[in-house]
Amino acid sequence: MKKAVVLLSGGLDSATVVAMVKDQGFNVYALSFSYGQRHSVELTAAKNIAQNLSAREHKTATLDLRIFGGSALTGDIEVPKDRAENDMAGDIPVTYVPARNTIFLSFALAYAETVGAKDIFIGVNALDYSGYPDCRPDYIAAFENMANLATKAGVTDVARIKIQTPLIDMTKAEIIQVGISLGVDYGKTISCYDPDTQGKACGHCDSCLLRKKGFAQANVADPTVYYRP
Amino acid sequence: MKKAVVLLSGGLDSATVVAMVKDQGFNVYALSFSYGQRHSVELTAAKNIAQNLSAREHKTATLDLRIFGGSALTGDIEVPKDRAENDMAGDIPVTYVPARNTIFLSFALAYAETVGAKDIFIGVNALDYSGYPDCRPDYIAAFENMANLATKAGVTDVARIKIQTPLIDMTKAEIIQVGISLGVDYGKTISCYDPDTQGKACGHCDSCLLRKKGFAQANVADPTVYYRP
Repeated sequence: MKKAVVLLSGGLDSATVVAMVKDQGFNVYALSFSYGQRHSVELTAAKNIAQNLSAREHKTATLDLRIFGGSALTGDIEVPKDRAENDMAGDIPVTYVPARNTIFLSFALAYAETVGAKDIFIGVNALDYSGYPDCRPDYIAAFENMANLATKAGVTDVARIKIQTPLIDMTKAEIIQVGISLGVDYGKTISCYDPDTQGKACGHCDSCLLRKKGFAQANVADPTVYYRP
Repeated sequence: MKKAVVLLSGGLDSATVVAMVKDQGFNVYALSFSYGQRHSVELTAAKNIAQNLSAREHKTATLDLRIFGGSALTGDIEVPKDRAENDMAGDIPVTYVPARNTIFLSFALAYAETVGAKDIFIGVNALDYSGYPDCRPDYIAAFENMANLATKAGVTDVARIKIQTPLIDMTKAEIIQVGISLGVDYGKTISCYDPDTQGKACGHCDSCLLRKKGFAQANVADPTVYYRP
């Protein structure tokens, strides 16, 4: 069986990616990060998802991005609430973590190289997160090009390393519909940037607002438990 | 003053880079990694070098690359000793750590973005380490291209992020000569892949052999203390 490394945050998007990758016949090597995020309950969610969707292996890399600061997700800046979608689509938000996807993909590359996987999956989405520079297709293509020069595999193997982004052009509603058809239990996923310690969602950060709207548009009952509905 | 992020391992090469970057008029933001390496005494060396060469700031990022395994520098594989230089130049050595420079440069990119630096320096060397895929100029150029798509700075600023490799075409002897002229105290640096707990060098790993030869060819007394000369 082919092997794939899948970045798994514990959120709705990456859980769907795991299900899609399994459905394509890959053995899944899931990778999560404990990086000093506020919303570390997502790591429990990641573990449950990896188990439920029968990932072959699940590793959590510990690294502390708080040493650099500069983001609402790792620092003291407050997570913005109840923003209009126009505002989300504009400037790069304070929840942006400098170089986060580059760091995460670099670890995925190390993991892929050690297990002999050629395919790395990341659940970035150009529609919902246009404010994050490291979610754009150009960026992903540049990372892939670099990855093939960075590694033993790039030097010695014929098969290229591929960075795959199956969600890149999908709406949140489409992602949810695909996930439901593949048996994803979204009640086990956490998307909130500011959850409470039990993993209940705030219901008002950008991520919660997009998720709520996604369930509504997909016409699927929202299984999320909110602490401030 | 311009700001530069400099990757500082505590070895001879990166210490020289810090001195060169200072000499070019930059404020140095030095970055080291505690990544589960055997030779963690190099972190003490890095601290001393940053202090001696008046880095503006020095951060050490903790991340555990041992979760992936696959290298003599982080795993159970033995560090090879007394290899002929022809052997070093051939295959990718077991001391290669999968995707290590990519991971290190990704962290440097996060650091650069948070302090507002446009220049990232790394002491890779194409002559001495031709066996490492992530030390080649093509790789560095690809990383730079990706970095400018990955970050806020790449999206909003006119000045491009530059990955600078001042040592790339220098021999070890030339590096030592430049460093001596800039006042680097090489007695404070540690290059050995397999040092003892006091920081004495083995004298027989690839890195020690190249370093010894460098001092000999530069006609500079070798200040390294070896536990097995």
